[in-house]
Amino acid sequence: DGTCFIEMCDRTKNTNIRLSLPAVCVVWEIAMIILFGVFIRYNWESDAHWAESKHNLSDIENDFYYRYPSFQDVHVMIFVGFGFLMTFLKRYSFGGVGFNFLIAAFGIQWALLMQGWFGSLDYSDGKIKVGVENFINADFCVAGCLIAYGALLGKVSPVQLLVLTLFGVTLYAVEEHIIIKIIHARDAGGSMVIHTFGGYYGLAISWMLYRPNLDQSSRLQGSKYHSDVFAMIGTLFLWMFWPSFNSAIAGHGDGQHRAFINTYLSLAATVLTTFALSSLFQKHGKLDMVHIQNSTLAGGVAVGTAAEFMLTPYGSLIVGFCCGVLSTLGYVFITPFLEKHMKIQDTCGIHNLHAMPGFLGGVVGAITAAAASDTVYSHEGLVNTFDFKDEFKDMVPTVQGGHQAGALCVALIFGIGGGILVGAVLRLPIWGDPADDNCFDDEAYWEVRVGVLQLLVDNQHRNKLHKLKTRHL
Amino acid sequence: DGTCFIEMCDRTKNTNIRLSLPAVCVVWEIAMIILFGVFIRYNWESDAHWAESKHNLSDIENDFYYRYPSFQDVHVMIFVGFGFLMTFLKRYSFGGVGFNFLIAAFGIQWALLMQGWFGSLDYSDGKIKVGVENFINADFCVAGCLIAYGALLGKVSPVQLLVLTLFGVTLYAVEEHIIIKIIHARDAGGSMVIHTFGGYYGLAISWMLYRPNLDQSSRLQGSKYHSDVFAMIGTLFLWMFWPSFNSAIAGHGDGQHRAFINTYLSLAATVLTTFALSSLFQKHGKLDMVHIQNSTLAGGVAVGTAAEFMLTPYGSLIVGFCCGVLSTLGYVFITPFLEKHMKIQDTCGIHNLHAMPGFLGGVVGAITAAAASDTVYSHEGLVNTFDFKDEFKDMVPTVQGGHQAGALCVALIFGIGGGILVGAVLRLPIWGDPADDNCFDDEAYWEVRVGVLQLLVDNQHRNKLHKLKTRHL
Amino acid sequence: DGTCFIEMCDRTKNTNIRLSLPAVCVVWEIAMIILFGVFIRYNWESDAHWAESKHNLSDIENDFYYRYPSFQDVHVMIFVGFGFLMTFLKRYSFGGVGFNFLIAAFGIQWALLMQGWFGSLDYSDGKIKVGVENFINADFCVAGCLIAYGALLGKVSPVQLLVLTLFGVTLYAVEEHIIIKIIHARDAGGSMVIHTFGGYYGLAISWMLYRPNLDQSSRLQGSKYHSDVFAMIGTLFLWMFWPSFNSAIAGHGDGQHRAFINTYLSLAATVLTTFALSSLFQKHGKLDMVHIQNSTLAGGVAVGTAAEFMLTPYGSLIVGFCCGVLSTLGYVFITPFLEKHMKIQDTCGIHNLHAMPGFLGGVVGAITAAAASDTVYSHEGLVNTFDFKDEFKDMVPTVQGGHQAGALCVALIFGIGGGILVGAVLRLPIWGDPADDNCFDDEAYWEVRVGVLQLLVDNQHRNKLHKLKTRHL
Repeated sequence: DGTCFIEMCDRTKNTNIRLSLPAVCVVWEIAMIILFGVFIRYNWESDAHWAESKHNLSDIENDFYYRYPSFQDVHVMIFVGFGFLMTFLKRYSFGGVGFNFLIAAFGIQWALLMQGWFGSLDYSDGKIKVGVENFINADFCVAGCLIAYGALLGKVSPVQLLVLTLFGVTLYAVEEHIIIKIIHARDAGGSMVIHTFGGYYGLAISWMLYRPNLDQSSRLQGSKYHSDVFAMIGTLFLWMFWPSFNSAIAGHGDGQHRAFINTYLSLAATVLTTFALSSLFQKHGKLDMVHIQNSTLAGGVAVGTAAEFMLTPYGSLIVGFCCGVLSTLGYVFITPFLEKHMKIQDTCGIHNLHAMPGFLGGVVGAITAAAASDTVYSHEGLVNTFDFKDEFKDMVPTVQGGHQAGALCVALIFGIGGGILVGAVLRLPIWGDPADDNCFDDEAYWEVRVGVLQLLVDNQHRNKLHKLKTRHL
Repeated sequence: DGTCFIEMCDRTKNTNIRLSLPAVCVVWEIAMIILFGVFIRYNWESDAHWAESKHNLSDIENDFYYRYPSFQDVHVMIFVGFGFLMTFLKRYSFGGVGFNFLIAAFGIQWALLMQGWFGSLDYSDGKIKVGVENFINADFCVAGCLIAYGALLGKVSPVQLLVLTLFGVTLYAVEEHIIIKIIHARDAGGSMVIHTFGGYYGLAISWMLYRPNLDQSSRLQGSKYHSDVFAMIGTLFLWMFWPSFNSAIAGHGDGQHRAFINTYLSLAATVLTTFALSSLFQKHGKLDMVHIQNSTLAGGVAVGTAAEFMLTPYGSLIVGFCCGVLSTLGYVFITPFLEKHMKIQDTCGIHNLHAMPGFLGGVVGAITAAAASDTVYSHEGLVNTFDFKDEFKDMVPTVQGGHQAGALCVALIFGIGGGILVGAVLRLPIWGDPADDNCFDDEAYWEVRVGVLQLLVDNQHRNKLHKLKTRHL
Repeated sequence: DGTCFIEMCDRTKNTNIRLSLPAVCVVWEIAMIILFGVFIRYNWESDAHWAESKHNLSDIENDFYYRYPSFQDVHVMIFVGFGFLMTFLKRYSFGGVGFNFLIAAFGIQWALLMQGWFGSLDYSDGKIKVGVENFINADFCVAGCLIAYGALLGKVSPVQLLVLTLFGVTLYAVEEHIIIKIIHARDAGGSMVIHTFGGYYGLAISWMLYRPNLDQSSRLQGSKYHSDVFAMIGTLFLWMFWPSFNSAIAGHGDGQHRAFINTYLSLAATVLTTFALSSLFQKHGKLDMVHIQNSTLAGGVAVGTAAEFMLTPYGSLIVGFCCGVLSTLGYVFITPFLEKHMKIQDTCGIHNLHAMPGFLGGVVGAITAAAASDTVYSHEGLVNTFDFKDEFKDMVPTVQGGHQAGALCVALIFGIGGGILVGAVLRLPIWGDPADDNCFDDEAYWEVRVGVLQLLVDNQHRNKLHKLKTRHL
């Protein structure tokens, strides 16, 4: 009956979102304004009172100068990195970069509120006080939803994406609170909180929205020469700035410094094993752009949790080495398997880039935390790195390792569970998603100025396909 | 007789700039070298004497570390942001990104001199002392000219653009001096100084250079699929780094911190209302890339003046909300109106992205300044934010609001007046601008290697048009 | 017999690298892991012990905050800058950006080891201690190899490139040690160490790998419209971030500040003279994208050595002015000459962008150093800038100038000599390089999804050429 339900939806597919999209955007933005008016204020370091209240602090010790360069790098990853990585489809570049833009811009606002209520609420006046670190966290939160978008690329409407983001950010904020505050796990680069959650969230939604007849759009489900080059812009900005991503909210000083080093090294190793396996598994040893665009990034995901730990430089290389192998194998074997046998259609292969490496990152983090010691970190270093303060001042590394493992389970449960719930909502036939033979096509939601020539070729191609099909029936 | 004059020019149109472009470039660059030799020196913080004269200051308190990351973001906006935003035309991408490069590289040199004479002249030795803040201001100054280029894109020669930049920078430096130093208005993000001035400067020039027969180039006056994706690179880098633009020369510490927050939020809100209105005003609710590429940025423009004020986070959202609406409506209604009834041909729609939001930003700034108080800012905060020092130490916020409004008028007058004057100069038939049927075409000024195929199609298209025209005559 | 040897190789050309590429990547990465395990550790500022051992130091004085923003800019130059600059060929964009990615990711690991053994080895425990400055230096080191790749673009296999990088990094580390430590020359932006070495290294290899029948691939040896726009992404990111490149490892405070200013100004001047000469030497004064993409960057190369010296702002402009002229003339006259008479095929024209401007930069550095004085620098400034400390505390500027000139010779010798040796290795017929009629074609090493249409046109074109050739025989 799942199929029936989908068929029913298909029959009434209408991608006209002239009412729903403007309505959702305007109403939600007005809601944001009201909620921001009630709740959000500048924090100590961004308020004009700082001039009086900072006392002997130098201006340069404002957190802005510690974190703003990293924030901007993260910002580039969210908008250009994720956005351009999703331009690889031959006729869905507008949707890739454009909808990414839309949902990220909405998500960061909602994330400031959701994360604020859980984390930055000043109980003295009931206000959320925001500064640069909140904005980094908002970008992080949105990354979870953009990852989920990767699985659904080309198959959903922008309204569905906004709904996915609304729920995704909400789930993320709760999950993050449980993992960081309640379980007291550490996750500077978000292997668990962002990637495991986001990856499984997207895969579960994709499973709920399974399209058995998606091959009707197969003519558009690939790249062309220049769209692959565009996607490399996304890949490279993600790859280059991932060290900033993993170090952006790490501890001041050695914490940020170390997180950057570990990530840099892990990513470098991933590139080599990705190229190796991509060549090994193709006919004639030719490299596949899909692998180069995606698997080269897996090392950054997997080193996220342990980035600020004393993972050691060679430890980072090992993590990166394994991830390049694993992620490329994922593209070669697991993605087709998931589609064929598990009814999970994963357009960008987020399973191989986020879900699996994120899970691995959680495991690496748990092991590295459990193995920590005063000798390696120094006492003060250990307390700083793992935040063994206040109610957790008697925590020991081995127990911390267990907490890390528990946190990983929470991320998984929120991802899969949340994805199934949200997927059910997104199956409602009211969101304007495209029909099966209309997926991966920008014409559904964008005014596209196609060249006369391209149109001719596309039509000929379509006619030929149509004739072939007709003949076989 | 204006039409006559233009017709006369058209008859002699010759886009060969083999003498004029090299001559202007070389002579002006030599002039720069001489003037730099006479006037420009390193300032205290970039001179090798700093090691001796800094005394107890830590190296990290060199202004370089406060401002260099923001400077680089601004630099990216000027060259990649503006440059790629102007690649959207199907056959004018070289001119868009290339001439932007040329005039920005010239403009920053001339701006260092012009702004230096007005602002950084050391009267003890008659030298201009430059450091990182001067270079940010030079980039800002050039932004005004690049905005003006947006209105003229595809219709002018590089020599005309260099002339436009020479005069534009000069006008800007005078206007900035009047607004900032004499009127003592605040304008951290340049809503008035940069965007209002630059916008109306470009529109006035475009009005002076009106081409009644521009529809002869209409075959090239649009985008194609990949040129729209290229333009999104420009859009996104402008959007992401706008918080750095508005905070780059704000006060150390809380000033920069707050300017970044306000801009970030305003821009996020703009994206949602732009998508909403773009969908609402298209047939079938399809989104228009022109709106997404441009109107999403209007929030950054409009929050420029008030960025370092205590605008409050929800205030920023409101500004962004209104700008997305206004700017998109501008593209739908005002740009065609301006072209049809006001003889203003505005290729990139700078009226909707810079002129109108810039004006709005000036108004927002005036209101926010007038409403400032000791309670909201703290006394020291108020003095810092509005620079109520020295001769302005008795200034009060309400009066400051009036000064802000006055400054906005100055920006308008300089923009429109300067544009008319410079437009008159640019109408001289000596600059090598293209004929009406040769606009928006890179072949006028670039060696273009066109594919055999594209050539075929273009020719067929041109022939068909030609036949149609001949038949009707 | 050189020709014979090449012919022999050609006969057995086989671009299948399904065994060699994976083998090299995996084995070398495992070697990296082992060597990192034995040698590489966090340095003082990135180790968790820092929290205890930093004493009164503020967190913000961690070297991370001085150099990380510059590091990220350099990182963007290496991966996006160099990568996209090499996408300009119509059918080799994957190879341009992809192989650049591969060899840079390998090279930075090997560079950390090689440079570490020479420069950062802690003799107390035999470990290399790494922090942010080492990572910048690793990026610099790799830049030398990427420059060399520019000369060979489209004519070599990725395995050859990895070999080129292995030897290139090794040579670089030795050369750098001799120049910086033994000769005690200064070279903040690497005019000599990076550009002169890298440029002549690539040219010498290209000379060793001369292909007399390369014109068989001439149909692919050019750009097309969109590939030229892609290349502009590379150009602009290199141009914008070059000030960060030259200031990244300059002295804290005024050193970095001044290096940025000098580079910024030199680059600005180069743009104007490049446009001037490009127009002057083309028929009808049309600009050539090859010049704009490359020669505009020459000013950054030539100001590298002297960037942190008191070159003065107008001095920087003069350097930039000359370089724009020289480099563009190089593209017009020298590159064809080198190909015709010297058997050096230089795909990207690295002779004009790196080798020649790098040499000039060395000369400028020597002169500027020799002219230094206590008056201009202050005593402490002179000691800081030229590192006249310890065993070199009695050094005087004029002698330093001589050392700089000596250093330039070392760079030249290592470049040319190393290139000839490595070129000899790369001529072995085992590396999977393409045949002469198969160069500049991504299909050799990549799964390329070509549009039906493009295929048709290419085939027609190829057939036509074939017919023409057959007819003439």
